[in-house]
Amino acid sequence: MSRRVGVDLGGTTAKLGLVNEQNEIEKRLVIPTDRTLPFEEIIARLADGIKSLGPVESVGFGVPSCLKPGSGIIIYANNFGWKNKDLRGELQKHLKDTAVYIANDADCAAVGEYFHGAGRGYESMLMLTLGTGVGGSFMFGGRLFLGGNGSGIEPGHIIVREGGEECTCGLRGCLEAYCSATALIREITSSASPLLARLIRENGGKANARILFDAVEAGDEDAQNILDRYLRTLAAGIGSLVTVMRPHIIVIGGGISQAGDRLFKPLSALMPSAVFSYDVIGCADIVPAALGNDAGIIGAACLKDALGA
Amino acid sequence: MSRRVGVDLGGTTAKLGLVNEQNEIEKRLVIPTDRTLPFEEIIARLADGIKSLGPVESVGFGVPSCLKPGSGIIIYANNFGWKNKDLRGELQKHLKDTAVYIANDADCAAVGEYFHGAGRGYESMLMLTLGTGVGGSFMFGGRLFLGGNGSGIEPGHIIVREGGEECTCGLRGCLEAYCSATALIREITSSASPLLARLIRENGGKANARILFDAVEAGDEDAQNILDRYLRTLAAGIGSLVTVMRPHIIVIGGGISQAGDRLFKPLSALMPSAVFSYDVIGCADIVPAALGNDAGIIGAACLKDALGA
Repeated sequence: MSRRVGVDLGGTTAKLGLVNEQNEIEKRLVIPTDRTLPFEEIIARLADGIKSLGPVESVGFGVPSCLKPGSGIIIYANNFGWKNKDLRGELQKHLKDTAVYIANDADCAAVGEYFHGAGRGYESMLMLTLGTGVGGSFMFGGRLFLGGNGSGIEPGHIIVREGGEECTCGLRGCLEAYCSATALIREITSSASPLLARLIRENGGKANARILFDAVEAGDEDAQNILDRYLRTLAAGIGSLVTVMRPHIIVIGGGISQAGDRLFKPLSALMPSAVFSYDVIGCADIVPAALGNDAGIIGAACLKDALGA
Repeated sequence: MSRRVGVDLGGTTAKLGLVNEQNEIEKRLVIPTDRTLPFEEIIARLADGIKSLGPVESVGFGVPSCLKPGSGIIIYANNFGWKNKDLRGELQKHLKDTAVYIANDADCAAVGEYFHGAGRGYESMLMLTLGTGVGGSFMFGGRLFLGGNGSGIEPGHIIVREGGEECTCGLRGCLEAYCSATALIREITSSASPLLARLIRENGGKANARILFDAVEAGDEDAQNILDRYLRTLAAGIGSLVTVMRPHIIVIGGGISQAGDRLFKPLSALMPSAVFSYDVIGCADIVPAALGNDAGIIGAACLKDALGA
């Protein structure tokens, strides 16, 4: 009976998984989350799906939103247009005595990596996800670190260049403004390199990180410069976070992390110039995330432990 | 018997205080710490001083050094030239059964402010000290936060301008490189403002933060520009720390904090442009430290609680 359900709630579908004692997904279910339906109706369908997976000890939810500390109340989930929705209360109407735990979806992915992925066996873990934005989470003392007041942390929005590039969040110079996949693709697309332009054309007009790494391997100087700048800023951001978190392991997720050694080797080589007292204290290893899309489901299922509830 | 001794160990003197249940200093003692004496001799004199204050429950030490996590071993205290010294072991030879707790001196000052000063009554606290360098500490869950691996954190060395000004620590663009009193005085001294030059002359050739604030009040444009730049960078640094720590209160110590409203009002006004999701989550108040030099003694005496030992 230590089976749990993890739910990774997205704007198009919710991915449900029945997770066993070994944190493996035993059964899966995908439920459309039609945002034109009322909140109550979507939750009712999700509850039916959860119940169909059998009796469980607890249910964990990863939601694309800020949450009111300790409440299970969604502050604003822009994918759904939900504002101030009592997700826990609504779920509990259907699930009665089953305990429900709720966290931000990016945090759930980090929890999954910590308990069952690249962070397994380490006491503390910093995770960054380099995707459309830069997400981040910190596992500390076996728990998800939500900051002093419990409102959650945003490592992607530390300021690495004061007064710099405008970020989607409205601030200037955030790590995300330089190190998201979006920012990197913008650099690649606007480059004058003929090789990069050709590789983009051959890829149907779409730029991505792989194209940049291919051009670097082919000796393209512009590509190398873009990568160098990207890595220096990423190293500065990770260095700042390491200086105030001192994690045992650093896990990088998101599309860019699939570059493997081409990313991780030069990035690791920059850390001595980005971490205070590197020569005395050093810096944790930087490794790729291991679970891919399953991290969110597994992490949601582990929320009881991660929240220390 | 819940009296404790707190020791603030400096390169010239050690300040000892007998601290009562209300965290007030009841008796004081100053012991010269002649760095030409052997380590063992200095410790023996300190132990004699501690014993002269009467029977106590515990002794806390603030030392100007990194410490090996959980060990009481000084890694390197450059004021004394001590390397890999077992401070706890040496003290325990003299103090027998009295429990000894050891932490970094800047951390002790934060612990003092948290238990008895400006941070009193708040659940979590970020403290920054704007002095020769920029020190910083984080109180979380009632404890001194020493990072995932326990090696201590250095909020003054997060990178706020990647590739920027060289810091004394060897990195580039650290908060300390822009926001220490040293950095501010460098800016004041190198300014072309005739008023600043005159105020420095009138102060015996010494620049300080007060001179800058006086010139700003007199409407000096150069002084205003220096202050604006200083505050923007400080806000960016505090904003980054708030974004990953979410403290309930932010305490600023060091000489610059004595500027009062002239510092705290404009600094607070910049926080909406430095803290992620300020409009939803807000930012803790920024207030001056309250204990002055006593913070280190009181904090050292509170180490048992702060370290959760």
